[in-house]
Amino acid sequence: AGDIKAGRAKATQCAACHGIDGMSKLPEAPNLAGQTEEYLVKALNDFRTGERKNEMMTMMAKTLTDADVANLAAYYHSLGKQ
Amino acid sequence: AGDIKAGRAKATQCAACHGIDGMSKLPEAPNLAGQTEEYLVKALNDFRTGERKNEMMTMMAKTLTDADVANLAAYYHSLGKQ
Repeated sequence: AGDIKAGRAKATQCAACHGIDGMSKLPEAPNLAGQTEEYLVKALNDFRTGERKNEMMTMMAKTLTDADVANLAAYYHSLGKQ
Repeated sequence: AGDIKAGRAKATQCAACHGIDGMSKLPEAPNLAGQTEEYLVKALNDFRTGERKNEMMTMMAKTLTDADVANLAAYYHSLGKQ
């Protein structure tokens, strides 16, 4: 499982659209707070491999390592428990 | 915009995985409660067109009309305001 604190640090690059609190800042971006961890990992990996395409997310996901994906998923999932 | 009550009726076919309350009932299914309406419409339409693929969702989305998509998005979005 991912490291929530490391995920929070990495999530600064996601925050303009998804919020550092996981609540969407623009209509086309989904809320992520409390999302299931498995779904978040799959979504990011699908953008990394090109299985799923989105202009912004395809670009952002290319910068992520496997550890980043695990950490980000752990972080955004954790926000549902506040 | 969609019809929330019609969306709730249609959502009975989504509930086994996504919950009638929009909270995921299994790890690979995302929570939908309060999700942005625009994102929900895009996700369903991407499954309908094949732009996005998922064994279950590709099958389910094929049964939906444009009105169903609008109504389901309105319904699941509305659940974030409770």
